[in-house]
Amino acid sequence: MKNYQKLVAHYQSIHNFEHLRAICSWDQATNMPSGGAESRAQAMAELAVHLHKLHTAEELEELINNASLEQLTEHQHASLREITRVWQHATALPSSLVKAKSLAGARCEHQWRLQRQQNNWPQFKHNFDEVVSLSQEEAQIRADLLGSTPYDAMLDIYEPGMTSVQLDALFGDLASWLPDMIQQAKTSCVDQHNAHFAIEDQTRLANELMAFLGFDFNHGRLDTSVHPFCGGVSQDTRITTRYESTDFLNAMMGVIHETGHACYEQNLPKDMQALPVGKARSMAIHESQSLFYEMQIGRSDAFIQFLSGKAQALFKQQSEHNTPNMLKAQLQQVQPSLIRVDADEVTYPAHIILRYEIEKALINQEIQCGDIPELWDAKMTQLLGISTKDNYKDGCMQDIHWTDGSFGYFPSYTLGAMYAAQFKAAMMQSVNIEQHLSEGDFSPIYAWLKNNVWQHASRYTTEELLIKSTGQPLNTEFFKTHLRKRYCNG
Amino acid sequence: MKNYQKLVAHYQSIHNFEHLRAICSWDQATNMPSGGAESRAQAMAELAVHLHKLHTAEELEELINNASLEQLTEHQHASLREITRVWQHATALPSSLVKAKSLAGARCEHQWRLQRQQNNWPQFKHNFDEVVSLSQEEAQIRADLLGSTPYDAMLDIYEPGMTSVQLDALFGDLASWLPDMIQQAKTSCVDQHNAHFAIEDQTRLANELMAFLGFDFNHGRLDTSVHPFCGGVSQDTRITTRYESTDFLNAMMGVIHETGHACYEQNLPKDMQALPVGKARSMAIHESQSLFYEMQIGRSDAFIQFLSGKAQALFKQQSEHNTPNMLKAQLQQVQPSLIRVDADEVTYPAHIILRYEIEKALINQEIQCGDIPELWDAKMTQLLGISTKDNYKDGCMQDIHWTDGSFGYFPSYTLGAMYAAQFKAAMMQSVNIEQHLSEGDFSPIYAWLKNNVWQHASRYTTEELLIKSTGQPLNTEFFKTHLRKRYCNG
Ligand SMILES: [Zn+2]
Ligand SMILES: [Zn+2]
Repeated sequence: MKNYQKLVAHYQSIHNFEHLRAICSWDQATNMPSGGAESRAQAMAELAVHLHKLHTAEELEELINNASLEQLTEHQHASLREITRVWQHATALPSSLVKAKSLAGARCEHQWRLQRQQNNWPQFKHNFDEVVSLSQEEAQIRADLLGSTPYDAMLDIYEPGMTSVQLDALFGDLASWLPDMIQQAKTSCVDQHNAHFAIEDQTRLANELMAFLGFDFNHGRLDTSVHPFCGGVSQDTRITTRYESTDFLNAMMGVIHETGHACYEQNLPKDMQALPVGKARSMAIHESQSLFYEMQIGRSDAFIQFLSGKAQALFKQQSEHNTPNMLKAQLQQVQPSLIRVDADEVTYPAHIILRYEIEKALINQEIQCGDIPELWDAKMTQLLGISTKDNYKDGCMQDIHWTDGSFGYFPSYTLGAMYAAQFKAAMMQSVNIEQHLSEGDFSPIYAWLKNNVWQHASRYTTEELLIKSTGQPLNTEFFKTHLRKRYCNG
Repeated sequence: MKNYQKLVAHYQSIHNFEHLRAICSWDQATNMPSGGAESRAQAMAELAVHLHKLHTAEELEELINNASLEQLTEHQHASLREITRVWQHATALPSSLVKAKSLAGARCEHQWRLQRQQNNWPQFKHNFDEVVSLSQEEAQIRADLLGSTPYDAMLDIYEPGMTSVQLDALFGDLASWLPDMIQQAKTSCVDQHNAHFAIEDQTRLANELMAFLGFDFNHGRLDTSVHPFCGGVSQDTRITTRYESTDFLNAMMGVIHETGHACYEQNLPKDMQALPVGKARSMAIHESQSLFYEMQIGRSDAFIQFLSGKAQALFKQQSEHNTPNMLKAQLQQVQPSLIRVDADEVTYPAHIILRYEIEKALINQEIQCGDIPELWDAKMTQLLGISTKDNYKDGCMQDIHWTDGSFGYFPSYTLGAMYAAQFKAAMMQSVNIEQHLSEGDFSPIYAWLKNNVWQHASRYTTEELLIKSTGQPLNTEFFKTHLRKRYCNG
């Protein structure tokens, strides 16, 4: 085990520097005055270079090869599998390509902020072409190493084990079913007029909800930032939200979502937090936990009842806005719309499927950047009945993900929603969720997730984890059943 | 200049990792939940090891030697002098001694917290003996390198250029003058009863005072911590204070003091912040800026007038507590007391002088740990007329500094007070301080400090800096005159 132990020490060191990065990134989003940006960027760049050096250290290849010949426990085997995976991804690309992509991505993302506002596709496309071409190069190199298609090689970064053959089947099934479902589920628009919720009270409610949902304040905290996120480290998990005085539900749903991410982090096993095998399984499994909290729990009738009680007590002047029916009308609203991040639970998968289809074709070099707007318009029209012709800013220019070449990430959102629905169905076999929620007790739900998901970290592959906890591989039926039940009365 | 440029790149890298350390340390004191302590400690230890590696990198010696033969500007010469100084200190000790001292110091400091409460000198002495013996070893090694006495070699870490010959003269002069001065200056005790100042209002006042004193909120912020400090980095300077609802002056004086430190940091020259020559000159010069703010400005009659106006407007219910006379009675109170950190401007030097005399004898191996309590009692009685016999916790066990072996640091406090008084006297030749303060204008004072102290960073030695800005080396007369003027009506 000499080689394996050396690997453990090496990844402990990486983990420590990643701790510093996590805290300083969090600080950047929550506390840093704007004048501090320049020197922070320099410090973070230095740290990135150092982490890259550690991740690509020459001795790792030999250590990994030798460790695989050592006598390891089953657990250590899993650990070595994950170390190998992390190492392969870290060393896949020549550093010239990493640098070129990072520069092109930073430029494209930076200029996108203004170009999007100006609906300026031609100028955006100029930078984006370069990002795409470098990403295609990246995907080809990764594909050669993994023996997969280029797009599948990108997918593997975020969702190891998932392939586009599987995704085509899963998303194809959803896509053919979704337009009808949306037609049936569509509700009228709800707007809150003249409502006012003091930020101080919203913060108090947010903290109460976090406590209810099992967030451990001895190992984390809630702060404010422009975009909600979950950061920090397992032992000190930092979540954020943003508040608007006219609408408390937005902030609360953000908090509930991030609390799902946080509880996963806080319950990763303590004895292997520093190792790849001790980290969260994948992006989609992470998202499945936040969506379990936000969608399966947070927008359920039982939780809405519970939330209404809390809101009535706290926002006394606004009681007409906080009846269960008013909250339900907002939290279970279904309306096809242009913007993914504002989409509801039912229409959201449509936004993801169209992005998946386009990015897969792009990375596999079956289409070109110039084809995107037309494809976007066609798919939006087909799936949601909304055209985006000439509207780039609310169409293919709306997301940040592609600007820096993060192709392969989008599927995680809808995979997460589907995993969450499947976990819920499995949980219901032993836990009476509605009953517990109506009694104000979240602990059996928390315990199930802890036992079946959180504590396993990356010990099993995603599919193994799913089979272990739900008895079968990912199956779209659970998600479809969930949506039908909530939005079409079964 | 090839070698010099390589040094610049190397110290830029060190600076970047120190940035991460500064932000994470700040976070530790202001935000971190207690459950995060363990993994943070690991990450910080890893970073310390990495910084130590960078500071002691093998190639530095040759680079420094070669750079000294290169054609350098005057400025680069100063920069190389400071690089050399930092390198010499970093490489002076064998790593076994660094590690042993760090372990012994951590143990002694940790156990001191409880031992102090229990007034348990014998148990404390057990750990402290080891810290002292390792510090003596350290001092001897440093002394051999610098060709100085052991204590002077420790002093050089914090106050380069200062020697105990000079300190003996400076502190000896003060010590012989002080007891009489204290007798004359002594005031009665003032206590605020039944006063209440909302923390929210105190925070607002603190921010107003910081703005008045020139703190740049685009490059820094104010937060709360158990012990006030100034941290962060030049471009993002983080100060903290603590609030009590019964007394707003404590928090404000903390804020004014730390704002002095912060303005120095914020005005270090931008183009060389990463290099040793671009850092603050010394501990005592740093303290001179905070004491200039707190003592020379913050406790002056003109500022008290100004502060009273602000306090009257803000704490409307408490106006009887906030008259200029009431504030003056508190801010210019003189009372011999046991505890250094609570001491007033007049008695404070007595606390420092006695510590200096004891630590000098200890490090030069003229006395032993066992001699300290008796010496402490004798010197307290002589200088302040207070005995500490058998009272270790308010005597020689009251400070944290010695517990981890930071011998040589204490003189900085009173050197700082003396530098501040000398800067003030020089400033008054061109700036009518009282007049400007009474008109609510701090900018000429700020500009003088910026031009004469802050912008020079470590370009000059401390003595050169003092001669450049005040026309002469450190002279106790300015401090004595200041105290006589404020506390004995001249
Ligand atoms: Zn999420
Ligand atoms: Zn200070």
